[in-house]
Amino acid sequence: MNRSLSDGSTVAAVSTPAGSGGIAVIRISGPEAFRIAGVLWKGKALDSIPSHSVRLGTLTDESGEALDQVVATVYRAPNSYTGEDTVELSLHGSPWLQRRALVALVAAGAEPAPAGEFTRRAFLNGRLDLAQVEGVADLIAADSRASARVALRQVSGSFSSRLTEMRERLVELASLLELELDFSEEDVEFADRKALRSEAEELRQDIRRLADSYRRGRIYKEGLPVALAGVPNAGKSSLLNILLEEEKALVTDIPGTTRDIIEDTVEIDGLLMRFFDTAGLHTTDDPVERLGIDRARDRIRRAAAVLWLIDPTQPLEPQLKEMRETDIGAARLIPVLTKEDINTPLSPSDARKGLDEKESLRLHEILQKQESLDEEESLQLHEILQRAISISSRTGAGIERLRHELRAIPGDEENPGETLVSNLRHYRELTEALPYLDRLLDGLDTSLPTDLLAMELRGAIRHLSAILGTIDNETLLSTIFSRFCIGK
Amino acid sequence: MNRSLSDGSTVAAVSTPAGSGGIAVIRISGPEAFRIAGVLWKGKALDSIPSHSVRLGTLTDESGEALDQVVATVYRAPNSYTGEDTVELSLHGSPWLQRRALVALVAAGAEPAPAGEFTRRAFLNGRLDLAQVEGVADLIAADSRASARVALRQVSGSFSSRLTEMRERLVELASLLELELDFSEEDVEFADRKALRSEAEELRQDIRRLADSYRRGRIYKEGLPVALAGVPNAGKSSLLNILLEEEKALVTDIPGTTRDIIEDTVEIDGLLMRFFDTAGLHTTDDPVERLGIDRARDRIRRAAAVLWLIDPTQPLEPQLKEMRETDIGAARLIPVLTKEDINTPLSPSDARKGLDEKESLRLHEILQKQESLDEEESLQLHEILQRAISISSRTGAGIERLRHELRAIPGDEENPGETLVSNLRHYRELTEALPYLDRLLDGLDTSLPTDLLAMELRGAIRHLSAILGTIDNETLLSTIFSRFCIGK
Repeated sequence: MNRSLSDGSTVAAVSTPAGSGGIAVIRISGPEAFRIAGVLWKGKALDSIPSHSVRLGTLTDESGEALDQVVATVYRAPNSYTGEDTVELSLHGSPWLQRRALVALVAAGAEPAPAGEFTRRAFLNGRLDLAQVEGVADLIAADSRASARVALRQVSGSFSSRLTEMRERLVELASLLELELDFSEEDVEFADRKALRSEAEELRQDIRRLADSYRRGRIYKEGLPVALAGVPNAGKSSLLNILLEEEKALVTDIPGTTRDIIEDTVEIDGLLMRFFDTAGLHTTDDPVERLGIDRARDRIRRAAAVLWLIDPTQPLEPQLKEMRETDIGAARLIPVLTKEDINTPLSPSDARKGLDEKESLRLHEILQKQESLDEEESLQLHEILQRAISISSRTGAGIERLRHELRAIPGDEENPGETLVSNLRHYRELTEALPYLDRLLDGLDTSLPTDLLAMELRGAIRHLSAILGTIDNETLLSTIFSRFCIGK
Repeated sequence: MNRSLSDGSTVAAVSTPAGSGGIAVIRISGPEAFRIAGVLWKGKALDSIPSHSVRLGTLTDESGEALDQVVATVYRAPNSYTGEDTVELSLHGSPWLQRRALVALVAAGAEPAPAGEFTRRAFLNGRLDLAQVEGVADLIAADSRASARVALRQVSGSFSSRLTEMRERLVELASLLELELDFSEEDVEFADRKALRSEAEELRQDIRRLADSYRRGRIYKEGLPVALAGVPNAGKSSLLNILLEEEKALVTDIPGTTRDIIEDTVEIDGLLMRFFDTAGLHTTDDPVERLGIDRARDRIRRAAAVLWLIDPTQPLEPQLKEMRETDIGAARLIPVLTKEDINTPLSPSDARKGLDEKESLRLHEILQKQESLDEEESLQLHEILQRAISISSRTGAGIERLRHELRAIPGDEENPGETLVSNLRHYRELTEALPYLDRLLDGLDTSLPTDLLAMELRGAIRHLSAILGTIDNETLLSTIFSRFCIGK
């Protein structure tokens, strides 16, 4: 794992967000970090400062003229993020100063670091595995509790540990089989085939379970895409406002925390909801409107959940017709009766429940009158409306229940210690590992030759290793030769 | 100076620029900094970490769930920026994480720091004087070499030293006079009035010279406002492009350095130029166009320099008329002959010089034909055109000379060690100190009573002290009683 860098260069970049602030941090990493930063540094000699400590000094430009008073933090290889000698300069956060200091560092011999270079070096120097590297990127992009949680599990290595454990069990199995191959002339069968089969079966289940967690992991990481659908004036925008408003009020309590709020997303109990307010659905001949409605239907189909708003103050028939005619794909449908505060023939008294018997009967009558509905469709719609959540965006009635219902969609309450897959690449590697284990189990049942069984295992190991960025054959071989060599 | 904080609160804020980046830094300062940060910190106990050193640990939210892997830097009072116990947490730069960590710190007992709070504490704890505080703000806003240079001189205290030195000389004079007052019954005259007069005269000159430096200091700090003026199609936009382009090419050489470039400004040899491209000046009846031209004239009048573009391929008469009718205020006029590459009756062969004799004659003829010009106006315009810089935005001819001419406008080549006033407040205090010294000198000539002379000195001292944020009477008294007390 400890591959050395090919070029031996020293790189520098601004590590803090772009723009103006109280302070900004420039990171310099590489074998020449102390020498290059030292060219511009007036203060205690950088290579005489103990690792993990900070000193105040002056940063000059390449001509020696003072640029800024800065704090330098010194990290000595290998005990740094990159595993290399590293200097972090904390300067006053003027964009001009940041640029100018970087130009001076480049003049002094540093190379401008491309995106991700510090983390790439951490990986190349064995400080992070590939899953941890991806976790760092995810953590920086985290925009909710759930996304930060899955990312942090990856960064901290707990995801990698789980993967490593499974891989080691596969390697163990492979080693046993490989050992048999070494003694194949002697017709020895080291491995207990029954125990081997049960272990392989268990591993297959573990890997499948982990791969299956991607459905949730993706929602935690990327948020839940929720479409708001309904006829025009059904109350979509009012509902969206009330869902967004509470959160906005919450975060603006703390000065300086309202930065970078993306419109139309809101975190509900740690999970990010991405709301798509769609054009009101209705029959129209206007080609421009139709284009908007087509786009609305497309968004609805691609959502994970659809809040279908039904306005009881408007005729129900066209609303039911639009609902029936819209493909919601694999999305969860949450019917919502809006304007609960207005007295209508269809207005459940208890906002937290569906329709009562009388209302249900009235609804049934409406549905009966729909000429185009057959019995089954009518029942289906009736069922949908019965479980509708009745809300009022004016009084706030039913909103809490709606939030709760949305929050429950990923299912399976997550727990902080759980290992989840949230990365598409990891999901693909895991699902690609499964057929190898299927064939291994088949092969064990049909007494396939040992070398073919070992090949299947190696295939599965390769995919698990790819997640961690380790070279599988090397690992497999080194395990075999270090742990199972018997004097050969 | 060591005024203690009234509230004893501990504050926290994100100190790095807003937005997403590799890392972000949250600063926590106050008597409870270690305890409050410690609530959320899993790692080596913060109060056991040596000052000025960093440790890796985990930051949790207020419920104890891990939020991020962070690096904590510990500073122990009084050896920190604020003079208080300080913890700096370097986290992954997700805006969500920054917000969430701040919310957790507030839940743990920190108060969200208002703008400038850390520097306010540095001032209140005597770590920085007021001029240094203002320098910090200027350094963060610095957008050119010149502005960073004057700001850094303030931050580093070299500006304050110069002020302090002048104030001490005033205090010394005042002390001598006050001493006389103490012995007034005895009719003693301690101070050598002649020496006193010459010292006061010298001080007045020093203060005036410093105040006068504000003309340059302001340009260094804020940049030079340059208006581009001329008739439509005189070549203003082409010239602006070529002036801006070189710099753009320079800065985009380094990845990540092109952030926050404000349009239409460019740094020429360390000095920021703020270019205003104005509407082409011409006679029109269109009220909308007239509004634009009025605005153009207003900008031209408020500029520090006006590049007046004359297009030799267009009729000269209307161009000269516009020039004559425009009030350029106190701005420096730089006449520019554009399109040097096109052969015209008015096209100096040497782009670096003005018109040759033949061209000058031809120009004279043109000016003679202008009915509305009297002899003096004609001569004036002739003189202006003779010193015009001939340029071509296509070939780049003359551009270097133009840049040089702009750069020279502040005059008096600055040197890194020079003390300059760049702050309006400082300028005002200095100019308000001068009349006191005028009256003191008059009073010395007219043998004004000592107590009245001392009063004038105290007035001057008060204004110099205000720049540094020290309370003048206290200083004056403590100096008097500590250095001049003779057993009373």
